[in-house]
Amino acid sequence: MNQYRGNRALDQLRPIEIKTGIQKYAAASVLWTQGETKVLAALTIEDEIPPFLTGKKSGWLTAEYSLLPASTQTRSVREAAKGKQSGRTLEIQRLIGRGLRRAVDLKAFPDQTLKIDCEVIQADGGTRTASVCAAWLCLALAVQGGKLPKSALVAEIAAISVGIVGGDVSLDLEYAEDSRADVDMNVIMTGRGHYVEIQGTGENGDFSAAELQSLLSYAGKGIGEIFETERTFLKESGKNE
Amino acid sequence: MNQYRGNRALDQLRPIEIKTGIQKYAAASVLWTQGETKVLAALTIEDEIPPFLTGKKSGWLTAEYSLLPASTQTRSVREAAKGKQSGRTLEIQRLIGRGLRRAVDLKAFPDQTLKIDCEVIQADGGTRTASVCAAWLCLALAVQGGKLPKSALVAEIAAISVGIVGGDVSLDLEYAEDSRADVDMNVIMTGRGHYVEIQGTGENGDFSAAELQSLLSYAGKGIGEIFETERTFLKESGKNE
Amino acid sequence: MNQYRGNRALDQLRPIEIKTGIQKYAAASVLWTQGETKVLAALTIEDEIPPFLTGKKSGWLTAEYSLLPASTQTRSVREAAKGKQSGRTLEIQRLIGRGLRRAVDLKAFPDQTLKIDCEVIQADGGTRTASVCAAWLCLALAVQGGKLPKSALVAEIAAISVGIVGGDVSLDLEYAEDSRADVDMNVIMTGRGHYVEIQGTGENGDFSAAELQSLLSYAGKGIGEIFETERTFLKESGKNE
Amino acid sequence: MNQYRGNRALDQLRPIEIKTGIQKYAAASVLWTQGETKVLAALTIEDEIPPFLTGKKSGWLTAEYSLLPASTQTRSVREAAKGKQSGRTLEIQRLIGRGLRRAVDLKAFPDQTLKIDCEVIQADGGTRTASVCAAWLCLALAVQGGKLPKSALVAEIAAISVGIVGGDVSLDLEYAEDSRADVDMNVIMTGRGHYVEIQGTGENGDFSAAELQSLLSYAGKGIGEIFETERTFLKESGKNE
Amino acid sequence: MNQYRGNRALDQLRPIEIKTGIQKYAAASVLWTQGETKVLAALTIEDEIPPFLTGKKSGWLTAEYSLLPASTQTRSVREAAKGKQSGRTLEIQRLIGRGLRRAVDLKAFPDQTLKIDCEVIQADGGTRTASVCAAWLCLALAVQGGKLPKSALVAEIAAISVGIVGGDVSLDLEYAEDSRADVDMNVIMTGRGHYVEIQGTGENGDFSAAELQSLLSYAGKGIGEIFETERTFLKESGKNE
Amino acid sequence: MNQYRGNRALDQLRPIEIKTGIQKYAAASVLWTQGETKVLAALTIEDEIPPFLTGKKSGWLTAEYSLLPASTQTRSVREAAKGKQSGRTLEIQRLIGRGLRRAVDLKAFPDQTLKIDCEVIQADGGTRTASVCAAWLCLALAVQGGKLPKSALVAEIAAISVGIVGGDVSLDLEYAEDSRADVDMNVIMTGRGHYVEIQGTGENGDFSAAELQSLLSYAGKGIGEIFETERTFLKESGKNE
Repeated sequence: MNQYRGNRALDQLRPIEIKTGIQKYAAASVLWTQGETKVLAALTIEDEIPPFLTGKKSGWLTAEYSLLPASTQTRSVREAAKGKQSGRTLEIQRLIGRGLRRAVDLKAFPDQTLKIDCEVIQADGGTRTASVCAAWLCLALAVQGGKLPKSALVAEIAAISVGIVGGDVSLDLEYAEDSRADVDMNVIMTGRGHYVEIQGTGENGDFSAAELQSLLSYAGKGIGEIFETERTFLKESGKNE
Repeated sequence: MNQYRGNRALDQLRPIEIKTGIQKYAAASVLWTQGETKVLAALTIEDEIPPFLTGKKSGWLTAEYSLLPASTQTRSVREAAKGKQSGRTLEIQRLIGRGLRRAVDLKAFPDQTLKIDCEVIQADGGTRTASVCAAWLCLALAVQGGKLPKSALVAEIAAISVGIVGGDVSLDLEYAEDSRADVDMNVIMTGRGHYVEIQGTGENGDFSAAELQSLLSYAGKGIGEIFETERTFLKESGKNE
Repeated sequence: MNQYRGNRALDQLRPIEIKTGIQKYAAASVLWTQGETKVLAALTIEDEIPPFLTGKKSGWLTAEYSLLPASTQTRSVREAAKGKQSGRTLEIQRLIGRGLRRAVDLKAFPDQTLKIDCEVIQADGGTRTASVCAAWLCLALAVQGGKLPKSALVAEIAAISVGIVGGDVSLDLEYAEDSRADVDMNVIMTGRGHYVEIQGTGENGDFSAAELQSLLSYAGKGIGEIFETERTFLKESGKNE
Repeated sequence: MNQYRGNRALDQLRPIEIKTGIQKYAAASVLWTQGETKVLAALTIEDEIPPFLTGKKSGWLTAEYSLLPASTQTRSVREAAKGKQSGRTLEIQRLIGRGLRRAVDLKAFPDQTLKIDCEVIQADGGTRTASVCAAWLCLALAVQGGKLPKSALVAEIAAISVGIVGGDVSLDLEYAEDSRADVDMNVIMTGRGHYVEIQGTGENGDFSAAELQSLLSYAGKGIGEIFETERTFLKESGKNE
Repeated sequence: MNQYRGNRALDQLRPIEIKTGIQKYAAASVLWTQGETKVLAALTIEDEIPPFLTGKKSGWLTAEYSLLPASTQTRSVREAAKGKQSGRTLEIQRLIGRGLRRAVDLKAFPDQTLKIDCEVIQADGGTRTASVCAAWLCLALAVQGGKLPKSALVAEIAAISVGIVGGDVSLDLEYAEDSRADVDMNVIMTGRGHYVEIQGTGENGDFSAAELQSLLSYAGKGIGEIFETERTFLKESGKNE
Repeated sequence: MNQYRGNRALDQLRPIEIKTGIQKYAAASVLWTQGETKVLAALTIEDEIPPFLTGKKSGWLTAEYSLLPASTQTRSVREAAKGKQSGRTLEIQRLIGRGLRRAVDLKAFPDQTLKIDCEVIQADGGTRTASVCAAWLCLALAVQGGKLPKSALVAEIAAISVGIVGGDVSLDLEYAEDSRADVDMNVIMTGRGHYVEIQGTGENGDFSAAELQSLLSYAGKGIGEIFETERTFLKESGKNE
């Protein structure tokens, strides 16, 4: 029997909507809407690599993340105006980059860098995991559109947040839940059900081994459904090529 | 008899499309599409003022502008990552702020600051003038929605670019035109047909008094049509309140 | 039957050595040596709080982390000279701060901030988890020495790294192991065996649910032994008061 | 019949005084005094070009502008100490650079950059237009002195400010006028009477087409007189070579 | 018998020329020319003090120093554009500030800060000592002109550079000498012949106790002559009040 | 007859203790304890040189200096977090670098840079002179250990602070003395008794020629004793090789 928070079951994802083609100069772009959270991701392929890869016949992948100032309940100060990116921003873009590098074979695009830009248009919780999903879809669309070789994409990757809110393990937290969660966890998994990244934090409480299992089980269910959504979208999108 | 560049007459605007309600936390938000140029503007009303206005029973208005990295033909380096805003960005946001302050009565919202964020989603020429138009519409929508007092808005403001391209005076330049223009001019006008700002530059050539008149005449025509579009939009929008 | 890497079993901690009293102006300081990794942690208690806590009768705790330039195999550029802290540094000090805030009751030291400085003297893997342990010991010593009220410390906290190296789940990775690990995980736990933070990353590979259990089991064993070391140290240290 | 503000007619320039040879290491230097405004401009010729011109057999020209801290009524904070140039400074130096690039043939000094430094010693209005005039004179003196080839200078350039103050169109605004002007306009023209740059702003009011004509007419008159002054100065200066 | 370098004896100052009234908004300004070195110093009196003096009934004095980009043989990069002041700049302005604070009684101008700006117009050696002299003269002129109380100035201060060049102890080094000096020393003294600051550096060699005495003796002679020049200047200047 | 301050004669050094081998990745490292002042210095040898030495068959030496935040009575803000190094830090590391360059023959290690990192663990006065001593010892140990050629080290260098405190010339000031000193002087000398650097400042008073002699005489005595300590240490250390 499902337990509910408002109209949504505790193990239920928010509705996901996917739009592409927002930014025509990008190799691929995706507007990912998950409930009230909206993230615009774009992939640019540049003919350069960081110095440490020179001569190594390898490519690279990096991600950048930004909250648009008006995306949050209280306006966020523009990081370009402040002159530096916050620790939170840097932490998130490192997470996205690490996660996505697991999805690609860097040797398949030597001397090129895949740059993924994630812009949060509206932030209602789960922006970093939505960014991972949208970014991965950009990679898949770039392969589908012939911008990247098929061999570049070696794994499916998706991500979701879970948490413990008011004692309940819950899937896909909204901002109102996230801000009062005792435990907050972001999980990135592959299409084969393995973990790529687990970041769990007892913000206002610690959690037991049993709770951890429950959190991971919810995350696995949610990520499975996201993969369904993405696969369906890519099949439709492939038909239109 | 009209002269043409491709399918568009030299004195013809690109098609304009307006969407609102993109960013729910903002007092108003507008996605302004003009041809292939897309600007997302949002208005936030903050209960603070810059120090020089303390005790003056006045409000303030500022604007910020940003090219999303993937908005341009060649990806633009993220200014937050570089740690500073470019001269171009600062020049543009000063222009938007100055222009919009002409549209409002700062005394009508004492001790509050109107912060306008203009994010360029796709840049195909005319992003600063599209920003002015979208930003003004945010102000008008905020008044319509009761977020700002009616007395706050004292003028209609709109803007357009004009230029001389290959010898032809042309309205509303696309990027391909702008990048090879001899003269480039941005004009902000009021609904009564007066000038608020004129910024004309002979990038690759100077221009005569006669050419100036022609440029201003095209600008006047274009801005007139934009006011028509905005008034129609606001009338429709008002009905739905 | 234990498996070994060189002289050390896969589930064996490196030897830990603890010295205090290195920095006389600090409320407490600890030089934590774990194998060849050396971290100097210091606690300063300041009579100020960040603005968001004004009037809330609460204190705060933050952590800062730094690699001394000569601490690493290849000298690290000094962040003060570069003018900014790296994403890695910011990510680590956020982790340390979050973890340690779980150990304290912020209401027990209203209007004060506990500042924890972690300086890596020598970096041979596990510097962030060593920082957490050394920092927690500073808190405990400050309580023991009467610099903080007993009520300030509400939990024991310790941390360790685990990973999968060459196919083997391994405890307490050295740099040589860490740099070729397929999976790298940092775990912070309480003295009651609950999780405070889990950060697991498949740097060069993903990991299954079974591997996750194995990693967590090794981490639990290692952290248990660290608590033993810390409790013994504090008992001895308490006698000398 | 002329209208007056104090002793000066509304269409009258402030007295201009020109001194050269202030900075011996520069290719040319000019101390430009216009009323109480004093600008020191210097030209340095460097054997390097920005990356985007590599291999294009072209030179480049850039300008930098600075208010000395003690140049203003209230001391201006030193931008080097603040660690960044203000938006105003960047906007002005972009204006000076654009304007001066119209005066030169970049192909005439391949792989060299002309760097123009404008230091405001005393600011009493019109510092950016005085900078343009002083900078152009540096170019002309460098040609006269054989530091630049004759072919490098392809046009005469001068600039002036005009405005509407208390309802009167006025030429060459002093600070006291500028600070209460309704409309403020900077105009750069060529010796042949064409426009290079027009930047008009309704700071505290908008302006009609008729007012615009009047502003431009005053500007044309003032710039004509500046050209007379510069030509006379260069003739005298040429005799002394 | 005097030894010479070119036309100047080894213990001979370069000719000094003093002009005032360059910057009308300053409390006092001095253009100090010493040979080919030109420094513009200005004094601004601000009604604010640094936080550490709040409530202490004291004033403060700080100095800032800058090489104008075109002041040096090879153009110096503008520090405002680079976004930070060099170590050399910071070292020099700390020296000037410390030296000048010895000349004033901070209690004589409570809650005010004397800000001294030293701009090097042309750099031919000895810019920091010329800055000290010009800055002190600004203080004396401000007292003479009634901008500061007589009690504010408690000592005469002047400075000079000495060095060992090609084996010869030399007074008041030009750039060509300074750049090949084995020893370089800057000395600040009071009108009573005491030392305020000695900064001697064996740039390319060390120096014996005997050489030190010789350096200090030359410095004393030079500073004595500077005091004569300053006293004469102030007497003349006082007559014109 | 010796005069005393507490238990220490006015011309008596604080006890010095030297430890090496703190940082295994460095070419040499020294923990220098002088009374309660503790400085950790490390030498790294890098295969690169600054651009101005390219092709000159020369090496280079630079020094960096940092106060660890918890090293001071009141915690010092971390410069990496502030985003810039203070003027004091820059001044000190320039002093250390200049001083040490006198001890080496840059031609003996062409195309290499010796980087010296001085970290102040505990600051109780004299940290810059202790840094010079510890840094020189690193150089000597690197020669002894074969990391640098014998020809690289051409001079012995040591440093000490002296001052006038409460009217008494005093050697090797502690923080409590330094903070109320009228005159503060740092002296660097060679093993042959010559001066490399003298930086004397009348912080709260000026000083006569006689006082200067007395200060230098104390400094000479103290530095002589430091050389004894260093030579003894190196002899012992050499035996253990």
